[in-house]
Amino acid sequence: MATIEDIGLSAAINILTAAIFLLAFAFLRLQPINDRVYFPKWYLKGARQSPGHGGASVRKFVNLDMRSYLKFLSWMPAALKMPEDELISHAGLDSAVYLRIYLTGLKIFVPITILAFLVLVPVNWTNETLDGLKVEHSGIDKLSISNIPYGSKRFTAHLIMAYVFTCWTCYVLLREYEIVATMRLRFLASEKRRPDQFTVLVRNIPPDPDESIGELAEHFFLVNHPDHYLTQQVVYNANKLAKLVKEKKKVQNWLDYYQLKYERNTSKRPTVKTGFLGCFGSKEDAVEHYTSEIERIEMEEAEERERIMKDPKLVVPAAFVSFRSRWGAAVCAQTQQTSNPTVWLTEWAPEPRDVYWDNLSIPIVHLTVRRLIIAVAFFFLNFFYIIPITFVQSLANLEGIEKAVPFLKPVIEMPTIKSFIQGFLPGIALKIFLILLPSILMFMSKVEGLTSVSSLERRSASKFYIFIFFNVFLTSIIAGSALEQLQSYLHQSANEIPRTIGVAIPMKATFFITYVMVDGWAGVAGEILRLKPLVIFHLKNFFLVKTEKDREEAMDPGSIGFDSNEPQIQLYFLLGLVYAVVTPFLLPFILIFFVLAYVVYRHQIINVYNQEYESAAAFWPSVHGRIITALIVSQFLFLGLLSTKGAGQSTPVLLVLPVVTFYFHKYCKNRFEPAFVEYPLQEAMRKDTLERAREPGFDLKTYLADAYIHPVFKCDDDDEKFSMGAEREAEQVLVATKRQSRRNTPVPSRHNGSEVPSLPEIVNDQRL
Amino acid sequence: MATIEDIGLSAAINILTAAIFLLAFAFLRLQPINDRVYFPKWYLKGARQSPGHGGASVRKFVNLDMRSYLKFLSWMPAALKMPEDELISHAGLDSAVYLRIYLTGLKIFVPITILAFLVLVPVNWTNETLDGLKVEHSGIDKLSISNIPYGSKRFTAHLIMAYVFTCWTCYVLLREYEIVATMRLRFLASEKRRPDQFTVLVRNIPPDPDESIGELAEHFFLVNHPDHYLTQQVVYNANKLAKLVKEKKKVQNWLDYYQLKYERNTSKRPTVKTGFLGCFGSKEDAVEHYTSEIERIEMEEAEERERIMKDPKLVVPAAFVSFRSRWGAAVCAQTQQTSNPTVWLTEWAPEPRDVYWDNLSIPIVHLTVRRLIIAVAFFFLNFFYIIPITFVQSLANLEGIEKAVPFLKPVIEMPTIKSFIQGFLPGIALKIFLILLPSILMFMSKVEGLTSVSSLERRSASKFYIFIFFNVFLTSIIAGSALEQLQSYLHQSANEIPRTIGVAIPMKATFFITYVMVDGWAGVAGEILRLKPLVIFHLKNFFLVKTEKDREEAMDPGSIGFDSNEPQIQLYFLLGLVYAVVTPFLLPFILIFFVLAYVVYRHQIINVYNQEYESAAAFWPSVHGRIITALIVSQFLFLGLLSTKGAGQSTPVLLVLPVVTFYFHKYCKNRFEPAFVEYPLQEAMRKDTLERAREPGFDLKTYLADAYIHPVFKCDDDDEKFSMGAEREAEQVLVATKRQSRRNTPVPSRHNGSEVPSLPEIVNDQRL
Repeated sequence: MATIEDIGLSAAINILTAAIFLLAFAFLRLQPINDRVYFPKWYLKGARQSPGHGGASVRKFVNLDMRSYLKFLSWMPAALKMPEDELISHAGLDSAVYLRIYLTGLKIFVPITILAFLVLVPVNWTNETLDGLKVEHSGIDKLSISNIPYGSKRFTAHLIMAYVFTCWTCYVLLREYEIVATMRLRFLASEKRRPDQFTVLVRNIPPDPDESIGELAEHFFLVNHPDHYLTQQVVYNANKLAKLVKEKKKVQNWLDYYQLKYERNTSKRPTVKTGFLGCFGSKEDAVEHYTSEIERIEMEEAEERERIMKDPKLVVPAAFVSFRSRWGAAVCAQTQQTSNPTVWLTEWAPEPRDVYWDNLSIPIVHLTVRRLIIAVAFFFLNFFYIIPITFVQSLANLEGIEKAVPFLKPVIEMPTIKSFIQGFLPGIALKIFLILLPSILMFMSKVEGLTSVSSLERRSASKFYIFIFFNVFLTSIIAGSALEQLQSYLHQSANEIPRTIGVAIPMKATFFITYVMVDGWAGVAGEILRLKPLVIFHLKNFFLVKTEKDREEAMDPGSIGFDSNEPQIQLYFLLGLVYAVVTPFLLPFILIFFVLAYVVYRHQIINVYNQEYESAAAFWPSVHGRIITALIVSQFLFLGLLSTKGAGQSTPVLLVLPVVTFYFHKYCKNRFEPAFVEYPLQEAMRKDTLERAREPGFDLKTYLADAYIHPVFKCDDDDEKFSMGAEREAEQVLVATKRQSRRNTPVPSRHNGSEVPSLPEIVNDQRL
Repeated sequence: MATIEDIGLSAAINILTAAIFLLAFAFLRLQPINDRVYFPKWYLKGARQSPGHGGASVRKFVNLDMRSYLKFLSWMPAALKMPEDELISHAGLDSAVYLRIYLTGLKIFVPITILAFLVLVPVNWTNETLDGLKVEHSGIDKLSISNIPYGSKRFTAHLIMAYVFTCWTCYVLLREYEIVATMRLRFLASEKRRPDQFTVLVRNIPPDPDESIGELAEHFFLVNHPDHYLTQQVVYNANKLAKLVKEKKKVQNWLDYYQLKYERNTSKRPTVKTGFLGCFGSKEDAVEHYTSEIERIEMEEAEERERIMKDPKLVVPAAFVSFRSRWGAAVCAQTQQTSNPTVWLTEWAPEPRDVYWDNLSIPIVHLTVRRLIIAVAFFFLNFFYIIPITFVQSLANLEGIEKAVPFLKPVIEMPTIKSFIQGFLPGIALKIFLILLPSILMFMSKVEGLTSVSSLERRSASKFYIFIFFNVFLTSIIAGSALEQLQSYLHQSANEIPRTIGVAIPMKATFFITYVMVDGWAGVAGEILRLKPLVIFHLKNFFLVKTEKDREEAMDPGSIGFDSNEPQIQLYFLLGLVYAVVTPFLLPFILIFFVLAYVVYRHQIINVYNQEYESAAAFWPSVHGRIITALIVSQFLFLGLLSTKGAGQSTPVLLVLPVVTFYFHKYCKNRFEPAFVEYPLQEAMRKDTLERAREPGFDLKTYLADAYIHPVFKCDDDDEKFSMGAEREAEQVLVATKRQSRRNTPVPSRHNGSEVPSLPEIVNDQRL
């Protein structure tokens, strides 16, 4: 049992770590040389450009303005200044709503914390149970429910609070769902013309011996949607081509590297070995070698392009079908086309940049099998992942290595290396697994056959949440691997499970407090430092960058990473709700996490992240659902805990809570979820009518002609980002921006999101 | 443990009972006086009429043709003769598909029985376990899995059989789902024009201060479906009017009764007491009294009619909106109309006669609350119903009655009456509850707010199945009330539950064999006798019938009663699947049930039942789902049983089965269920095009004008049945019928469905 002093020490260490991260960030971000690491979003928006070639050369790399260092925390208020509407138009609705998750956390937990400290802490504190027991205990335990004697009447207070907290959480969730749904509808309504508004993704087009997929689709929709059908675009299986394009890019990088090397040292032409890994084979002139490589790949690419256009086998039985009006598309997306529900499946087309092209060709019959396989695989991953890791760990000892690679023996036997390996190896297998986990889960989701990147991320997030729930939350509480838990769940009665877990909860409060500080506080502070992108950018900048465009590509703005970040926030909701009644002392730590994370992520979203797609907050239903799950879990665990504390007669009273919460969830689902799934006809009709009145002669067909072609077919790489960015950009030309122009001057822009050396007047960079 | 002799005796008794029922039926149905009880369907179809007034008067009541008695079982082949297509056009798709449930049972269990007897019975029989144990055992136990020694290798046979049976069941289910889906689609495609094809039920129309509901709906759909909207019909809250109409009918019955009484005995005018229950108050002339009553009600009725038309508050915020084409209606029914998903809810309109009018006005927000309440209520009904019944039973003893009504004491104390009450009372409370159960469940479903009779029946059937599963199946196996079970489930581990139940299964085989014979064999034979309708018809016929139309109304053809009958069939599926591997000896009994029930219900559907609605087999997904449930339950119970027999290592092998079965169910759901829920656009378009070509000038608006008015507004009662019957009737005029005309002649019609005195050439009776 950690005492309050232990916690204090741990807090001090973690606060110090977080502070160091924040200070390092405050220093690094002021250096112009890091500008593209800490403000890539503005470069992508065209609001900043690289420091020009004029001016003092040192100032290009280092910030010498001492005054700016004094205000090293000024980014925080700056991050909070941008109003939500501007944030939405700046970074998209997804990002803005993602931030609302943290806000929701604050809205739920601030009143709960206050109430818990006003009511529960005094109720708990004024008992003598733990003192009487003469067991070792800390001040924290005196504040927790453990200090209430067996069968005390005081549990009524906790019972009432459980009701109050549930009601409050549900109320906040209801309000937030309402707000987010409204935001989404307003966002969709205010959107300019976009290809996906008119387009439906049709999958599983049945093969026809007489007609090509394209003709078939055209005829089918001409017959069944005669007044609305406009055009269609077949999907090509361009996986091989995409591979070639990727390879070309890699070779191009090497070419750039050697050209730069030669430029810097013209005395010696760089050479390269052509064999395996560049270590064997004959030496050749590097520049020439890579130039010829590129030529070869370009030829192959051209061939493949031709082949795709000619070979009907490379046409996937799917098509993007566009309609004359949004109404027509909305109708087609929401209805069943034929009596056989496995063919001619229609759904809303994702944004062009959101399409996950590889999965478009999977037939529906395979989907069930794939889901079954992945469900089983995920079950084993979740409960049995510990087995292979233990196995690898048992292999990865000194004897094992010495046996496998005997010639390394003398090196390994050196004392320092030996101790390093012994201390480091066992943990590394687990660490590597945990780092790889989001990618593994994403791979699993891809196998399941979803067709858009956004839905893939949502699916991965669900899996990750389940993994965290069993392997972090429950494992920490009852101290056994998920596999051992599984066994005990199977051998325990339904009554017993919440009791076993519930009883252990108060004892683990200090552990989770430490966890919140390490993972939450320091983790979030680490996020803002962006150590990995910082290093990679400077490496690339040094070795590869020749032109301004290369530099642009060397930037790695990243994105929110919904699939791995959101489940981690959910863990804090879970902890907060579980401990709210049991050990309220944990709540302030979670509050600090939410505040810090909110500020940091707001800053990152404004200045760094470049969201790859816009799903218009389609993830909110799952966020809502997971908070509800956490709430129900907390209710059951509290029920289990109370039944071991001699307050078993409260069980029926407490059982009402999960039932009501569940039906509250069902109500919310009915009430709001359709707004996140369907596109109402009224809205579609309204937009259609408005647009027809405004631009009667608009040539929609041309507009949609190339909207949904595989990215590799776009000659200019920059075209990839055309869809929404272009729209929004065009908007910005019309609307006067509030952003100020300046460079290396301390005058702050009004809502620049961060007070930094900023750059000339916003330019309508058509590359975006 | 019952021996084979015991079972044989029981079988003999039950076969005798069933035979007596069948003989009684064979005799009774030949009497012309019972013709309207045993062949009402033909009267409703207009293919028969009451025996004319000419001819020998005795022959009007009693069949004197001895030859017809000799062939007393001839109805059986007759019932099987009618081909399925004709059955569908005769009794509707619902009835035809309902019969397929029995067929499915046969298809599943005939091969399973054969296989089980070929493989499992020898494997079980050739062991000495039970002989060795020297415990009392019967021949049946020697045939069952109990005879296999602990940990024997022979369990492999059962394991393989479990796989084979699962595969076979799934294969049959898949095939049947496919067939039924095809039947449904063909049925829908072949249907003539029907109002519900063009109509959508719109609920939760938001109130508007400036416009009436009707105007509002018209404007909304004119704007949002401009090319397709045709007309709309508001729904009136006519519950009070419906009550008046009902009352009038009752009074009319009494009037008829007294008029008839007076006619038969003109010497004395019948009198009636006007007070409570007709026992108190002043005497009045009965005929006059009831005539004036009818006048009073008619006036009230007229007033109420006027009030409904005038008072806007009596307009329910729902409307039946009709479209120009099936395509337009299909689109509207499947799409979301506005951004607020709780208003302007659209769904397919049920058939006019299928509409459950009382529920049309429930707002969506209430639905969640209502469902919650009903879910809780059903939970308590399911697990705690035994408590009030025990309470009533404890009250309903002699002392209780004597206390409550002391003046009855001398009567009760009489020995015969005393013993009768003592023997009879305790059971009666339970019996009454079980008789009332389907009505209670139907009431619950009504509270849930479903809007069509067919969906109400489906919902009640689900509830009834759950009730049977816990209160018949599990209660019989582990011999404890559902409440005691609930407690043990909560206190047992997930592992333990299938084990406890599984272990008890082989021991209960003889009980279930008896159950199948009593409930299944004798019950089905009782069904064909129609004792209750027989008695009621003759009572009505004697006391009330004046005209031919009255006689028509006195007929009670009844209907299949999906809500109470289907769950009972499902119990046999459950028993069959559970015992297939454990005690194959049970299977032949279930086979006999399926055969008998198939023949009897086919006869009843052809000759008796008059289905009140046509849902085009919309119930099949739930039938399929429940068989899958039974399959999964059987797999878990077998798993539990094996784990207690020393074959625990087979658990992982067996665990594969429920997982695969579950995903098989998911696959079927994806593959076929949409065909039962949605109306594909292609079909709609095809029918529209066809019809436009055939009848270019058809006045759809007039056709639809009165389709969806509350039945009480229809002046002529017979109009109620107009929709589909009329359509089908019209069809029959075009298609030459195969039915032969004859009366009281032994020449059999080709597919008359029953070899009985039949009636003149089919008449296109426009009342149908």
